Amino acid sequence: MEHIVKTLQNKDLDCFISEFSNSSCKLDSGFDLINFKIAFKTYGKLNDNKNNAILICHALTGDQYVSGKNPLTNRDGWWSRMVGPDKPIDTNKYFVICSNVLGGCSGSSGPKEIDSRSQKPYGRNFPSVTIKDMVKIQNYLIESLNIKKLFAVVGGSMGAMQALQWTLDFPEKINNIIHIAGALKHSAQNIAFHEVGRQAIMNDENWSKGAYIQKNIIPERGLSVARMIAHITYLSDNAMHRKFGRKLQSRDIISFGFDADFQIESYLRYQGRSFVERFDANSYLYLTRAMDYFDIVSQFKNNIEFPNSANQHINYLIVSFTSDWLFPTSENKEIVKILNYFNRNVSFAEIETDKGHDSFLLDEPNLDLIVNGFIDNNFKKITIDDN
Amino acid sequence: MEHIVKTLQNKDLDCFISEFSNSSCKLDSGFDLINFKIAFKTYGKLNDNKNNAILICHALTGDQYVSGKNPLTNRDGWWSRMVGPDKPIDTNKYFVICSNVLGGCSGSSGPKEIDSRSQKPYGRNFPSVTIKDMVKIQNYLIESLNIKKLFAVVGGSMGAMQALQWTLDFPEKINNIIHIAGALKHSAQNIAFHEVGRQAIMNDENWSKGAYIQKNIIPERGLSVARMIAHITYLSDNAMHRKFGRKLQSRDIISFGFDADFQIESYLRYQGRSFVERFDANSYLYLTRAMDYFDIVSQFKNNIEFPNSANQHINYLIVSFTSDWLFPTSENKEIVKILNYFNRNVSFAEIETDKGHDSFLLDEPNLDLIVNGFIDNNFKKITIDDN
Repeated sequence: MEHIVKTLQNKDLDCFISEFSNSSCKLDSGFDLINFKIAFKTYGKLNDNKNNAILICHALTGDQYVSGKNPLTNRDGWWSRMVGPDKPIDTNKYFVICSNVLGGCSGSSGPKEIDSRSQKPYGRNFPSVTIKDMVKIQNYLIESLNIKKLFAVVGGSMGAMQALQWTLDFPEKINNIIHIAGALKHSAQNIAFHEVGRQAIMNDENWSKGAYIQKNIIPERGLSVARMIAHITYLSDNAMHRKFGRKLQSRDIISFGFDADFQIESYLRYQGRSFVERFDANSYLYLTRAMDYFDIVSQFKNNIEFPNSANQHINYLIVSFTSDWLFPTSENKEIVKILNYFNRNVSFAEIETDKGHDSFLLDEPNLDLIVNGFIDNNFKKITIDDN
Repeated sequence: MEHIVKTLQNKDLDCFISEFSNSSCKLDSGFDLINFKIAFKTYGKLNDNKNNAILICHALTGDQYVSGKNPLTNRDGWWSRMVGPDKPIDTNKYFVICSNVLGGCSGSSGPKEIDSRSQKPYGRNFPSVTIKDMVKIQNYLIESLNIKKLFAVVGGSMGAMQALQWTLDFPEKINNIIHIAGALKHSAQNIAFHEVGRQAIMNDENWSKGAYIQKNIIPERGLSVARMIAHITYLSDNAMHRKFGRKLQSRDIISFGFDADFQIESYLRYQGRSFVERFDANSYLYLTRAMDYFDIVSQFKNNIEFPNSANQHINYLIVSFTSDWLFPTSENKEIVKILNYFNRNVSFAEIETDKGHDSFLLDEPNLDLIVNGFIDNNFKKITIDDN
């Protein structure tokens, strides 16, 4: 069945929203999603050959606002460093698309949106979402934009999982992927950290079994604790030591109490508080779960070959960071090993930094160079081929 | 002022409780603690020379029940593997003492005990406690037992901090220390994990600003989340992978929901639930804070020399575990470096294991051998000296 797609500019959200109706989308869980919508931003222009489109996939708490101003937070987009005019992913040259993932909370269908059946926010009635589902929905969007082939799919962390999933599910539609700080599957330790975060949210009385929006409350305490836990895992021990050490916050001596004596404490409390203002607690549950469920090797067993003959032409760039203990180099190398085994075009870079998993969002000149070099050089190749 | 000490056997707690009255104890915070009590167990017999006494200092969630049956949990004491007749610390040979730390919750003065002034549980009115305070109180106990010199002070994790503090505060009263998986100071990352745990507890509405006992409730959700976070840090990524990996719990396929699909999730939930039954939430706040405040180097600055001339005679054994990321080898080596610099008798062992910080509590035959060798050989020396 064909989708009927209506794409409108949304002024409040300063982005496009595509509504897909008269069709359904079968999710991994078996649930039939109907009348779903995708919020997305584009940067730059699609060229006449329609061969300069780059899809950027966001991480767990990201959104469609890669570059420029994010209207929801009034801060710079999450990858403004990397994406924009004259930036490593140069929007003078490339047409960049970024959509809010399915299950997210900045305009795409997700637990905080209205369920057309009940006319109430979905809450826990929103279906379970997987990385494969996110990619399926992104593909509908790309189709609706009449783009036959993406020049590249790029993502870090949960975004890297999506990029990898693209090579399996729609290999004929992509030329290159950049996979930063991801893994073949989510590890036991990572599931453990996510589970504690979810327990903190679901243990908050305000959570109300997920139906807190109707009550006009939010489980802010639980969500804030969940964010604090996660935030520790995004940094490295060394970076924390360098940045905070045992420095005290606005005081000369310890308080002998439970105030935020140490800078690291007040920093974490601030991270928790500000996250609550911008992120939906139920989305946090759904998206962490999608990451936990990610295990691309288990998909091979379902008679999907990886890499398969259809993804032979893809160029892969795999990047890891030395101090990332959430998605360590060793796990990224597993992907490189498999790709090498199947004789794929794979480049690998391990970047020396003490900034931990969050390095992909931070000022890492080597990352900029590598991403820019990979993209521009591969783009030169196809434009020469075209001539 | 002399202490008046009354020591009684407590049947319910199956231990001794010493009540110190008619005296006060000035804590680090400046608070004068009066009429305090210490719960402790002893194993084996003090010999005629009174030179075979070993003080064992427990870790954050430990207690005085090192060996034999713990009457509060009906399970084996926390170090039954290490301490007992014919065990590495052989109670046929040594007189082992273990007391519940100040601020703890198994009989010593702490937030859940009755404040003699108000006749209500202390709760948040209990004074702040430091590692130095814990040791000060242990010293009163040792004095009350008429022991002039301890053969050894032994501890892991928070217990290691206490052992190190003993060498600074009462060097003339100890011959040997065994310091397992500790540090000169608590790191920023460790403070961060503790802070998140405390926020989880204090965010639980049942916490009631610390006065939950009077209300006959406990902040079980918050305490359970705090325990889950901490528990992740006690294991290594590898051990979790080996033990749980991505194995599912009592099901063949994922549930597409927020049940404990993975074994690691149900294991953590169980750890959280069972902890709530045995530990006081306020004690958890106080003791994590004591660890955060630990920074023995900062004490040097207050004109205390470490090592000082009075601790020249002490033999130090410092042990670390390769996979411990909470108190890593690098931090234990810092202690070894300082001791070597001052030409102290220091032995160091790094034990190869994937079991993480918790290794000191688990089956690690190399740890048994090293502890036993250090103790028995040093004991031979003093008994030869005595003859």
